[in-house]
Amino acid sequence: MLPGPTNVPERVMNAMLKPIINHRGSEFHALYSSIEENLKSVFQTKNDIFILTASGTGGVECAVSNLVNPGDKVIVPVFGVFSERISEKIRRRMGVPIEIVVPFGYAPRASEIEEVIDREPDVKAIFIVYNETSTGVTVRDLPEIGRIAKKRDLLLIVDAVSVLGGDVLPVDEWGIDVCITASQKCLACPPGLSILSVSQEALEKAAATKGRPIYFDFLKLKESADKKETPFTPAIPLLYALDEALKLIKEEGLEKRFERHKRCAEAFYSAFEALGLSIFPKEKLSRSNTVVAVNVPRGVDEHAVTKIMWEKYNVQIAGGMGKLKGKIFRIGNMGIISKKEVLATIHAFACAINEAGYAVDLKKGLETVEAVFQG
Amino acid sequence: MLPGPTNVPERVMNAMLKPIINHRGSEFHALYSSIEENLKSVFQTKNDIFILTASGTGGVECAVSNLVNPGDKVIVPVFGVFSERISEKIRRRMGVPIEIVVPFGYAPRASEIEEVIDREPDVKAIFIVYNETSTGVTVRDLPEIGRIAKKRDLLLIVDAVSVLGGDVLPVDEWGIDVCITASQKCLACPPGLSILSVSQEALEKAAATKGRPIYFDFLKLKESADKKETPFTPAIPLLYALDEALKLIKEEGLEKRFERHKRCAEAFYSAFEALGLSIFPKEKLSRSNTVVAVNVPRGVDEHAVTKIMWEKYNVQIAGGMGKLKGKIFRIGNMGIISKKEVLATIHAFACAINEAGYAVDLKKGLETVEAVFQG
Repeated sequence: MLPGPTNVPERVMNAMLKPIINHRGSEFHALYSSIEENLKSVFQTKNDIFILTASGTGGVECAVSNLVNPGDKVIVPVFGVFSERISEKIRRRMGVPIEIVVPFGYAPRASEIEEVIDREPDVKAIFIVYNETSTGVTVRDLPEIGRIAKKRDLLLIVDAVSVLGGDVLPVDEWGIDVCITASQKCLACPPGLSILSVSQEALEKAAATKGRPIYFDFLKLKESADKKETPFTPAIPLLYALDEALKLIKEEGLEKRFERHKRCAEAFYSAFEALGLSIFPKEKLSRSNTVVAVNVPRGVDEHAVTKIMWEKYNVQIAGGMGKLKGKIFRIGNMGIISKKEVLATIHAFACAINEAGYAVDLKKGLETVEAVFQG
Repeated sequence: MLPGPTNVPERVMNAMLKPIINHRGSEFHALYSSIEENLKSVFQTKNDIFILTASGTGGVECAVSNLVNPGDKVIVPVFGVFSERISEKIRRRMGVPIEIVVPFGYAPRASEIEEVIDREPDVKAIFIVYNETSTGVTVRDLPEIGRIAKKRDLLLIVDAVSVLGGDVLPVDEWGIDVCITASQKCLACPPGLSILSVSQEALEKAAATKGRPIYFDFLKLKESADKKETPFTPAIPLLYALDEALKLIKEEGLEKRFERHKRCAEAFYSAFEALGLSIFPKEKLSRSNTVVAVNVPRGVDEHAVTKIMWEKYNVQIAGGMGKLKGKIFRIGNMGIISKKEVLATIHAFACAINEAGYAVDLKKGLETVEAVFQG
């Protein structure tokens, strides 16, 4: 129950055993085409899709190094560890991140972004994390931010690593030029692949960017994608797994999948509140449907609780990152997730925190989960 | 029988099915430590080892972006497609590749490199491909080049993607600061990982390099490696596979493994000559023990031959790359390779080229293979 890498269905794991084929041959072209078509459905986009052998951070780096030239101003709302990382990447490219610093636990607002554009009229792009894995906050203003980006003629780049496939994100409808995700989160695949959707405008911007790295070059990726290939030898077993994972998503249907994640997230939030804990995101609307973040009660040792959960109940959840270390619990509500997993997690959590000396009412927690699924 | 991705033993494939674990937990630390220890044996180094989720090209890019600053002069012997790519990478980093252009089929010489250093005393590093996958040429002068680099106080960076684990390459003894390989070649693993050994000198140089990418940052890699982790979520199934592949190498022993590759390569070269074909590398000493390149006889359609081999005999070999397209056949002599594979390949090749209208003596080819293994 980690916020990634997440559990992988057996069908997807077993797909990795298919033969290692020539990545320049017709069998590979068929595999690539199948993946590409299903990814376009999940991203809800007609834009190009690029597949990298890299983690999600590699995908974010790829976007920055194709779209940021020295001196380019980019708006970056900073509200967690992953948005901080984007800012750092832009600085390393000699770009100028215009940060909108939001206290951890809150989401940035479209109006704040618009104010910054008014103040900095030469800004080139907005680079925003849709779902902050480190705080469990989702930016519900994203459609409005997309409208602002379109109106002001700015590129909109979205880090959707921990959410794409688990919550609503129609890339074209929301005007997203570059949308980045990774295999090991809501797609329920093993880690090792990052995926980007890239608009024509972003490709044109990349063509004018100097010093693009070869490994992450949009233009090489585009040239290869048109041939149903990757520019360099890809992680073939992971592509087989991704192909299978996407077939599972297609079988379930996107809307049903989003609904399932939302329902499980509601069950988590309600159950934690019934146990007497408070939710980390400060506004109800910003609560993520894929990463559940809960405050560690005063006097409780976060590490002791997660250790008991793992060693005694075989359920693994995460603590906080960076300055939130020891202050929050984080649960990945991604991919293979249903009432069963929510019940098992709440059960393990309540037992563990009781054993760690903080009394909660296990029965009330479990009943709350049941009630959400019946409601 | 492609020059990568190469065949993967069943034990290694099956290892990928182990559970997806938390990449920040103790189980992962044990896995990482096991891999690291065995990699140090295969690299024959005490230097740091970094593991990237990326192809070999990603590994080469990583080295360039940590070690080349704008204006830095780097000697690059260019004698094939992969060495050309290094030159391009250096240019994209605003570095200055000092190319030593060698006709395809020949290997660069230590003396040529020394002459260039005399002419360009402010050069910072030598970046050389040890085994050119595109031409089947190995640089046998590498130990001497290592001595020159040490004497002149230059960093020595070696692209050993298609050779490490298949031919002699004692990294520390030969004075190599950075040695790069990939999982899908002589380590006989699925593609998707790149591995680098990095000396203290190279780490110090990296610390002074501006604009290092986050995903490929030596310093972040070092910080994580010290904790037996990777900086970002790694391709866990591929790490399990690598761990198993390294155990197989340990069981066989490095010397035996090199001897086996060498014997199989000799069998290939002798058999092709017995069939009346000529070897692409112009000097016997430069012939690679891991990639066998053979000239396409006049009037023969390379693609027709490889197509028959694949469709009728189930053996896959490659043609030439770039300007060698249609001019050479290339065979990967890597990983799982023994008399059986050599015989099957020579059999399929002789039958296919006969069917394509170019008469060769199959029996003579097969007898030659047998003779090499008996000799």
